[in-house]
Amino acid sequence: MSTEKLPTRSENFSEWYNQVIQRAEMADYAPVRGCMVVRPYGWALWENIQQALDKRFKATGHVNAAFPLFIPMSFLEKEKQHVEGFSPELAVVTIGGGEKLEEPLVVRPTSETIIGYMYSKWIKSYRDLPVLINQWGNVVRWEMRTRLFLRTLEFYWQEGHTAHATAEEAVEETVRMLNVYTDFAINEAAVPVIPGKKSETEKFAGAVDSYTIEAMMGDTRALQAGTSHFLGQNFARAFEIQYLDPNNSLQYCWTTSWGLSTRFIGAIIMTHGDDQGLILPPRLAPIQIVVVPIYKNDQEQSKVFAAVQQVEKQLSAWRFKVDLRTEVTPGFKFNDWELRGVPLRIEIGPKDVDHGVVTLARRHLPGKAGKSTLPVDQLSIQIGNVLDEIQAALLERATHFRDEHIFDPNNYEELKEVVQNGWAFSWWCGSAECEARVKEDTKATTRCMPLDQPEGKGTCIVCGKPAQRKVYFARAY
Amino acid sequence: MSTEKLPTRSENFSEWYNQVIQRAEMADYAPVRGCMVVRPYGWALWENIQQALDKRFKATGHVNAAFPLFIPMSFLEKEKQHVEGFSPELAVVTIGGGEKLEEPLVVRPTSETIIGYMYSKWIKSYRDLPVLINQWGNVVRWEMRTRLFLRTLEFYWQEGHTAHATAEEAVEETVRMLNVYTDFAINEAAVPVIPGKKSETEKFAGAVDSYTIEAMMGDTRALQAGTSHFLGQNFARAFEIQYLDPNNSLQYCWTTSWGLSTRFIGAIIMTHGDDQGLILPPRLAPIQIVVVPIYKNDQEQSKVFAAVQQVEKQLSAWRFKVDLRTEVTPGFKFNDWELRGVPLRIEIGPKDVDHGVVTLARRHLPGKAGKSTLPVDQLSIQIGNVLDEIQAALLERATHFRDEHIFDPNNYEELKEVVQNGWAFSWWCGSAECEARVKEDTKATTRCMPLDQPEGKGTCIVCGKPAQRKVYFARAY
Ligand SMILES: [Zn+2]
Ligand SMILES: [Zn+2]
Repeated sequence: MSTEKLPTRSENFSEWYNQVIQRAEMADYAPVRGCMVVRPYGWALWENIQQALDKRFKATGHVNAAFPLFIPMSFLEKEKQHVEGFSPELAVVTIGGGEKLEEPLVVRPTSETIIGYMYSKWIKSYRDLPVLINQWGNVVRWEMRTRLFLRTLEFYWQEGHTAHATAEEAVEETVRMLNVYTDFAINEAAVPVIPGKKSETEKFAGAVDSYTIEAMMGDTRALQAGTSHFLGQNFARAFEIQYLDPNNSLQYCWTTSWGLSTRFIGAIIMTHGDDQGLILPPRLAPIQIVVVPIYKNDQEQSKVFAAVQQVEKQLSAWRFKVDLRTEVTPGFKFNDWELRGVPLRIEIGPKDVDHGVVTLARRHLPGKAGKSTLPVDQLSIQIGNVLDEIQAALLERATHFRDEHIFDPNNYEELKEVVQNGWAFSWWCGSAECEARVKEDTKATTRCMPLDQPEGKGTCIVCGKPAQRKVYFARAY
Repeated sequence: MSTEKLPTRSENFSEWYNQVIQRAEMADYAPVRGCMVVRPYGWALWENIQQALDKRFKATGHVNAAFPLFIPMSFLEKEKQHVEGFSPELAVVTIGGGEKLEEPLVVRPTSETIIGYMYSKWIKSYRDLPVLINQWGNVVRWEMRTRLFLRTLEFYWQEGHTAHATAEEAVEETVRMLNVYTDFAINEAAVPVIPGKKSETEKFAGAVDSYTIEAMMGDTRALQAGTSHFLGQNFARAFEIQYLDPNNSLQYCWTTSWGLSTRFIGAIIMTHGDDQGLILPPRLAPIQIVVVPIYKNDQEQSKVFAAVQQVEKQLSAWRFKVDLRTEVTPGFKFNDWELRGVPLRIEIGPKDVDHGVVTLARRHLPGKAGKSTLPVDQLSIQIGNVLDEIQAALLERATHFRDEHIFDPNNYEELKEVVQNGWAFSWWCGSAECEARVKEDTKATTRCMPLDQPEGKGTCIVCGKPAQRKVYFARAY
């Protein structure tokens, strides 16, 4: 860890973000433009995210599989809007085994096409439905402006792809997975996302309807943190995914896809972090507790180390680390683990040992506010509660911050103002023209139309025409 | 499941292998030549393999991370033997975002080069060593002749990459990971591999020494099932991976790499399978137990289903499935789950219910030999023992088969004969000429020189010169 101070979030949020990631050793730039290396500390966080999601996927009847990295170029061309959306972003393999390929291969930017092709082979009868498959993997999109975790050429994600007999079942699945993402974000990551529907302009290339969870970052910008798409029969028709119904008549399937990526790590960092560095939610933190022994001489050391051993035994149910480094001071260690966002620190000094206690320091409450003592023999009973309390406090703080920065402007002038430092939640007529005008005037885009809509109707904040729904406008990552 | 019979292993082992994989829905061919789709049943097996290995990696101090898919072509060229070994097999991205790239990007065939580059950035001092990182991911090698799991253009694996201060520590790590693979193969997969060292001819491109675990398949051919490489300072020099030692003097690191891939699934299939299909070892099987209710009328059904519910409660600690399909007969179900290699079947019919028992059928012992009954209330206590007993029986059977097919030929003529249906374990002078001669005469290659060597010395089975070590010769996948 460098000893230089981080830039504060208020002076330069973007620079704070870049530095905290690299100094906390979450990720690094790769030698290929726009690619990242996810370092062990960042990958351990991703593994915890994967487990929390995978458990939910399996509980809702999904299974995992693996489809190829390479997709024939002709596959993408089978769905018109899909190829229009993705063709500017493709990485293309033209040489294999020293020879020019007859048909270039696209490195998958997403897998609807190749999975659609396989589903058309596998699905014969209504008895084969629904097909509920998820894949954990890497995808590539040739982005021009990249940032660690938020937008990189290669990123890691899961993509679920399902096929159903009816439109109703497919829509139900789309919303089910949106709810899974919402539940995960709120209850595991303490990121109070808002679920809703994307506008026509913002939807996925090839979808009938796209749903999203939108999170507010510490600079009030929005981040699309996961999406779930109802694909109608678009891909089923393009790839002939058909089944025989109980009357022996051939029908097209209805499909969905849904994904959440390493981008979510960016959401966690920018939701919870402060000027000292990361703050990781206990349920996902790679290290939930760091233990720092404090001593000045050999006699104190042996006394403190004996207590550390007792503490270790009591912490076995949690992910903890004892920092035994001798080349740095306890103060250095405090800063180091604060930078890395470990939610709870246990300090053990000679006085603590004398009193049979340890000192707890909560990462999200700097200084004395976050400190308390706990009898050593209470640790295994109490520490779970302390971590739960921290988890709840992070969610509450982020929710409060979000709600404080969501505005209901009275007119278009006010909208233009509030989106400079927050989100506007406003009636919108649904036209792409009004969306485009807001974007041009403010850089804010429509983020989502929440599923829970207020009663009644209103008038469009932009054009004044009748509006059926309210939408969030915000500048976004 | 098609009702057509599988080809037997003795009439066409290769065709048996292809069909069993597809009919058990382990994997399928992708629309891109030489690529595979790992279907949910196959991927669940891979996930169990991953967990069993990952646990061992973490227990030996390793952490996971993710390095990029794309490697600049110039990186590969930095290690002479590495590029010579891999350049015929590369997939190359030449177009990104619609533009021709200035420097083509290789889709990683293995990651020594890009990880070496990152290590040179991260490692500064002896305090940073050892670095013990593993990566789970996909790699691409442009193979000409491909087979599901055994050799595909894209495959899935883990690759460990470590850096150490001394040669001794790096060699120790190389052997430690070889032992981890051996332990995994024997104790989780019931595949009795033989660990040993590769010859100079057969070693990894860029390694000083390569170690391998070699498994004998059901047709007696050998399969290299995992490798561990001591890379010396070859990659450290190519990528300037250096550290300051305690005397503040700059030293090159010593590095290792080790990998095990989805090829191992092929090893499991070809070690244990029989003419009815797969036989999966209980510790790795996606479904350890299948429960098949048997009834002829509604009255029997309600009686049997009540018992099934009792059974389900007792099986909660295992991976089990109750086959409730109504459109197929119990006999069809038996064949279906036998094809898929589920190690234990529980049959519950009206008579079983009357006697308060269930009927167990062990997959690896066809017919009555594998059947027994167990009181329902004993299930949760006994079923673990039954699975352990099956696991042990599979290992014993495979070990017996292997040992029966390892020969100690008296002369070269005998060697040529025995490698047609087995392995030869013979003294070898170590020369590439003798290796080449065996390969030309018999298609058999040197597989490994086991670490446990017999006492004494001998004479080379090929040329008659003095030989220090015995080696396995075998035809291999
Ligand atoms: Zn309007
Ligand atoms: Zn010789």
